[in-house]
Amino acid sequence: MNKGYQAFEQKMQKIADINYAMSVLQWDKEVNLPTKGARFRTQQISTLAGIAHDLQTESALEEMLNELKNQNDLSPEQAKNIALVQDKFARTKKLSTEFVVRQSKAISKSYHAWLKAREANDYRLFKDAFSTIVDIKKEEAELVGYEDHPYDALMDQFEKGAKTKDITALFKDVRSQLVDFVKRLSDRPQVEGGFLKQFYPKDKQWDYGLEILKSIGYDFEAGRQDISPHPFTTNFSSEDVRVTTRIDENDFSNMLWSCIHEGGHALYEQGLPSNQYGMPLGEYISLGIHESQSRLWENNVGRSLPFWKAHYKGAQQTFPENLGNIDLMTFYKGINRVAPNLIRTESDELHYHFHVLIRFEIEKGLIEGSLDVSNLDEIWRSKYKEYLNVEVPDDKRGILQDIHWSYGSIGYFPTYSLGSFYAAQFFAQACKEIPDLILQIEKGNTQPILDWLRSNIHQHGKRYTAEELCVKITGEPLNFKYFMDYAQEKYNGIYQ
Amino acid sequence: MNKGYQAFEQKMQKIADINYAMSVLQWDKEVNLPTKGARFRTQQISTLAGIAHDLQTESALEEMLNELKNQNDLSPEQAKNIALVQDKFARTKKLSTEFVVRQSKAISKSYHAWLKAREANDYRLFKDAFSTIVDIKKEEAELVGYEDHPYDALMDQFEKGAKTKDITALFKDVRSQLVDFVKRLSDRPQVEGGFLKQFYPKDKQWDYGLEILKSIGYDFEAGRQDISPHPFTTNFSSEDVRVTTRIDENDFSNMLWSCIHEGGHALYEQGLPSNQYGMPLGEYISLGIHESQSRLWENNVGRSLPFWKAHYKGAQQTFPENLGNIDLMTFYKGINRVAPNLIRTESDELHYHFHVLIRFEIEKGLIEGSLDVSNLDEIWRSKYKEYLNVEVPDDKRGILQDIHWSYGSIGYFPTYSLGSFYAAQFFAQACKEIPDLILQIEKGNTQPILDWLRSNIHQHGKRYTAEELCVKITGEPLNFKYFMDYAQEKYNGIYQ
Repeated sequence: MNKGYQAFEQKMQKIADINYAMSVLQWDKEVNLPTKGARFRTQQISTLAGIAHDLQTESALEEMLNELKNQNDLSPEQAKNIALVQDKFARTKKLSTEFVVRQSKAISKSYHAWLKAREANDYRLFKDAFSTIVDIKKEEAELVGYEDHPYDALMDQFEKGAKTKDITALFKDVRSQLVDFVKRLSDRPQVEGGFLKQFYPKDKQWDYGLEILKSIGYDFEAGRQDISPHPFTTNFSSEDVRVTTRIDENDFSNMLWSCIHEGGHALYEQGLPSNQYGMPLGEYISLGIHESQSRLWENNVGRSLPFWKAHYKGAQQTFPENLGNIDLMTFYKGINRVAPNLIRTESDELHYHFHVLIRFEIEKGLIEGSLDVSNLDEIWRSKYKEYLNVEVPDDKRGILQDIHWSYGSIGYFPTYSLGSFYAAQFFAQACKEIPDLILQIEKGNTQPILDWLRSNIHQHGKRYTAEELCVKITGEPLNFKYFMDYAQEKYNGIYQ
Repeated sequence: MNKGYQAFEQKMQKIADINYAMSVLQWDKEVNLPTKGARFRTQQISTLAGIAHDLQTESALEEMLNELKNQNDLSPEQAKNIALVQDKFARTKKLSTEFVVRQSKAISKSYHAWLKAREANDYRLFKDAFSTIVDIKKEEAELVGYEDHPYDALMDQFEKGAKTKDITALFKDVRSQLVDFVKRLSDRPQVEGGFLKQFYPKDKQWDYGLEILKSIGYDFEAGRQDISPHPFTTNFSSEDVRVTTRIDENDFSNMLWSCIHEGGHALYEQGLPSNQYGMPLGEYISLGIHESQSRLWENNVGRSLPFWKAHYKGAQQTFPENLGNIDLMTFYKGINRVAPNLIRTESDELHYHFHVLIRFEIEKGLIEGSLDVSNLDEIWRSKYKEYLNVEVPDDKRGILQDIHWSYGSIGYFPTYSLGSFYAAQFFAQACKEIPDLILQIEKGNTQPILDWLRSNIHQHGKRYTAEELCVKITGEPLNFKYFMDYAQEKYNGIYQ
């Protein structure tokens, strides 16, 4: 191997080691930390973050990259890794240390303001700190640079190459097609899901969740599941990918969908090539593609009739008191109940995109300056009335419900919807390529779809951008039509 | 605060952050790691170790120390911290990077040789690698320097200031007094402990262990207990001190004594001053003093009659099928059964010191050159015959039983015995100073002894050496007499 490349790989692995160590500390913080341990844990994480940041931005790395760029004995994979690290380096370099420190202080302040505001159920307590965040994000956009719209520069770090004009067009489709469709569903006879909100014993839920994870191919030799207040997936290599769930004894849905959703994220991480540890070709493409994996498993597979044809008997046997008298079709309809909801994370898979749409419109407005933070709570309420036809009773169930803005994550929300739309397009393609895919799922065999995802998506790491990958796999860029087709076929069946 | 000192403190805290992060990764490795995660976890730990090592040995730290040494506006605590870090720095500096790397490679080799030799139950497979370790340790002793005996230089890193001639004198007492005493006990009517080796259900053992930990004052808001193959205590600050235990359903002792033993270690760590995080004054004194804390709780408290006067009813209620028909005195005698044993970690508190004695004699011989590795298995067998009167049937239950030598930990074993001897001396002093100490323990109240340990030992961190502390607390240096007094009073009572 080229000696310069070898040194580069070693440096990247060292950076990865530190970043993954930090992830272990964060995972442990969410899953295990005794109360008093928080103070020094926060300090330990921030020390590791500082060391990783220094290594990622040091001139030695830049020199290394510049030298490697001109060498001609590199494999295409090596050249790709170098180019991608250089891209990232270039972006990072545009932000001065002064800016990074100022931003991190503003975030810490706004996070605490958000906690307080939530506690007091009063947006006004968050407004000023959030205003600073918006200013800093505008500044970041200018520093990073963009061609068309400042919001492009912010989305770019979560969804490389995503453009505001494309997302605007996409959400125009959402508005014109999905709002209408959901309205039509609400005029038809409604379905019942009350049986999901009975008492489901904790231990049985836990065991059932593990069983479901196993059945979709999650490798417990390369991961584990634990309990945490907010379910998440994290990884410390592709050979140690952990998921968490939460269990509400009075709501079966909570655990069930978090297991399959996080399981989908984890299957992606477990499928990334471990011989590219620390390198872009060993990493996920973008948040949108990551979410496409979780949503594909959660919705296209996990909320489908074929999946429950295979699994429902087992569920009935595990929870005879809850499901013994509920037939398969009632269960299937129940888990796909569509109803407007105030909270994004508790939303059904159709209304979900209205939640995202609203956040996108607000973020875009804030960054381009057509909106400001002063009356955002009112704007929030009017948009919820318009798109979801619900009255927002307070800020806690309104504008203060999500952590993202307090953390400076502006440009993140659109990736949630992109995930579902990519999922629909990928799943449609997989069905085309594997004629008996659905039949296999009905038999409880999801290996064919996992194999398809592994060979078409996971194994490539960051080799392609989201758009390149989508074209490569499906022959065209992201097209909302696939999601609408999926939604119409499925929900016209459920809401007859 | 002195600005130079402030910068020094920041640097020390940064080093601590990295070392504690490494401890989190190690804890997680023992407690949680999925099989496939081992490869990259090992790499991550070694990367952090490298970063910590670089910071600990960099010239910037040396310059900082040299400058601080000459400043006259430092508090005595600050001066002490500086002096102690300088000591450690001086030792570390004596070992070249070349030596450290060579040693670490030799250790890795010998650890794997030991694993193989254990598997094959054949000392010969370990001999060569161990010979290299012995040579490297001799070299280390020369590099570090010593006044009297090369073994001093090796003990020093585990037990600052310990001298071979003192330990030799101490073990001479062990040989002349304890060997005889134990022999006399073996001639008297023996006690029964078979009831401890019945079926004790796992969940009940787990709950009971937590209860015992709570009762001795372990703070679960600053720690947690988990399961691991080998029980241990670790900490990530004095506000996050974790213990592990193991549960054998057919042996109650395993869990019980590991809980109290590790709990004793943990009480020490939880009692160290958190405002000295990263500084010597926030750290334990030596391994001997650490072990004195675990042994004091395990033996002087946990295996005492007063302790079980308070706790035995609860134990009977928890395990009625095992203990319902066993009276308190039978239980008390059973948990203090004395019998020779091949395995150090399964030994009673008297024979234990013969195990340590043998290792000390062998280590001392190897380092001074009066012994060599070639026939160490025979020497092992003859010493076990001589001191414990047992036949060693094979190497697995003989010379290969402990990991220490494979890891290059030569000079470590004596601290185990020092721990018990210090414990006896400290406990005797506490009884003198707190007249109703035993009465309180009988009532289930161990707070007075914990308070005593906190104010006499824990709060000081590394302010005193082990010997200074012992003189300060008890008025004299370590004296084996206290252990013999304790042993005689206790075991003459049990073996009448």
